[in-house]
Amino acid sequence: MNFPSKLVEDAVYEVSKLPGIGKKSALRLVLHLIKANPTQTKELAKALTTLREGIRYCKHCHSIADKDVCNICENPKRQSGILCVVEDTKGILAIEATNQYFGKYHVLGGVISPIDGVGPSELNITSLVERVEKEEVKEIIFALSSTMEGDTTVHYIAKKLQNQDVKITSIARGVPIGGELEYADELTLGRSILTRTVYNQQ
Amino acid sequence: MNFPSKLVEDAVYEVSKLPGIGKKSALRLVLHLIKANPTQTKELAKALTTLREGIRYCKHCHSIADKDVCNICENPKRQSGILCVVEDTKGILAIEATNQYFGKYHVLGGVISPIDGVGPSELNITSLVERVEKEEVKEIIFALSSTMEGDTTVHYIAKKLQNQDVKITSIARGVPIGGELEYADELTLGRSILTRTVYNQQ
Repeated sequence: MNFPSKLVEDAVYEVSKLPGIGKKSALRLVLHLIKANPTQTKELAKALTTLREGIRYCKHCHSIADKDVCNICENPKRQSGILCVVEDTKGILAIEATNQYFGKYHVLGGVISPIDGVGPSELNITSLVERVEKEEVKEIIFALSSTMEGDTTVHYIAKKLQNQDVKITSIARGVPIGGELEYADELTLGRSILTRTVYNQQ
Repeated sequence: MNFPSKLVEDAVYEVSKLPGIGKKSALRLVLHLIKANPTQTKELAKALTTLREGIRYCKHCHSIADKDVCNICENPKRQSGILCVVEDTKGILAIEATNQYFGKYHVLGGVISPIDGVGPSELNITSLVERVEKEEVKEIIFALSSTMEGDTTVHYIAKKLQNQDVKITSIARGVPIGGELEYADELTLGRSILTRTVYNQQ
């Protein structure tokens, strides 16, 4: 594209580096910023800069945090002795949105995937094992992707913890609530039959 | 959403102000920036800030520019005496991409739309009439939206210029190249029959 302005060209180039934003979308965003109030651009640039400079990782659970310890780890109301293991901070956000979990978390930073060059040593597994000992963890809930890599990671960690007195569970896999049976894939439906739950009359 | 970090929350808030970007997309972009090299965020913030502070509007054609006069207006190779009238800078970019036009432009800044409170005085119409006199313009090509508002604007400007010796044209409307007849709307197809062109044997 032949830009009328070097400034626009530079801005479009930087914006289009973001994932899922192509040249055309980037141009639309840039033209919007030009038309909008200058403070909008200033505040956007400031928020991104302070974010990138200020961001930390929690020293306990490795989640994204503003300080050395994240809000959840330092919250005395959160149940200790129970850890939910997730791949990344997005997993924490998803589970927090359910309002059904009040324990703490542990962010692995991915799953074991030899094809992507990610071995156990690249993940926060050692610190997880240490936490289980130190924090007297009674239960670990795995909430990883339901893929071969996710299953391998669960298996690896479970083996590491086999001599410790900790219960290992995994979030339930099954047909989504509101989902229709005819659209469920065979694997999910098959698993949901095998792991059927007892009907609880209230 | 319950963010683990105030910094992330602020950044998501600012990013989600952009058009077409919701909370979830904003979070994805912010988490990407956190994972990526810090220079990426720095350069993005810098490009946006210098853009917003440095951007000008060309004093001749009102297009977005880095200086008081845009690249196209100051280019001696561009044909003078012919002006293409567009709504905004996006129109210039679209026409420049065709490589079929070598004249100059005039950005109106919108079209006459009483319902949106845009009257002729909000648009760069006076300066267009002045240019026609001063630059001895021989032809004006309207490339506005094919809407009632666009047509009204063309009509209004044409009337303003009726005493001047300038040819007024409009870009052709018709069935897109590669478009199939059965999918063309009746209005476009009807217009394309009325404004049929003579077959040019080569």
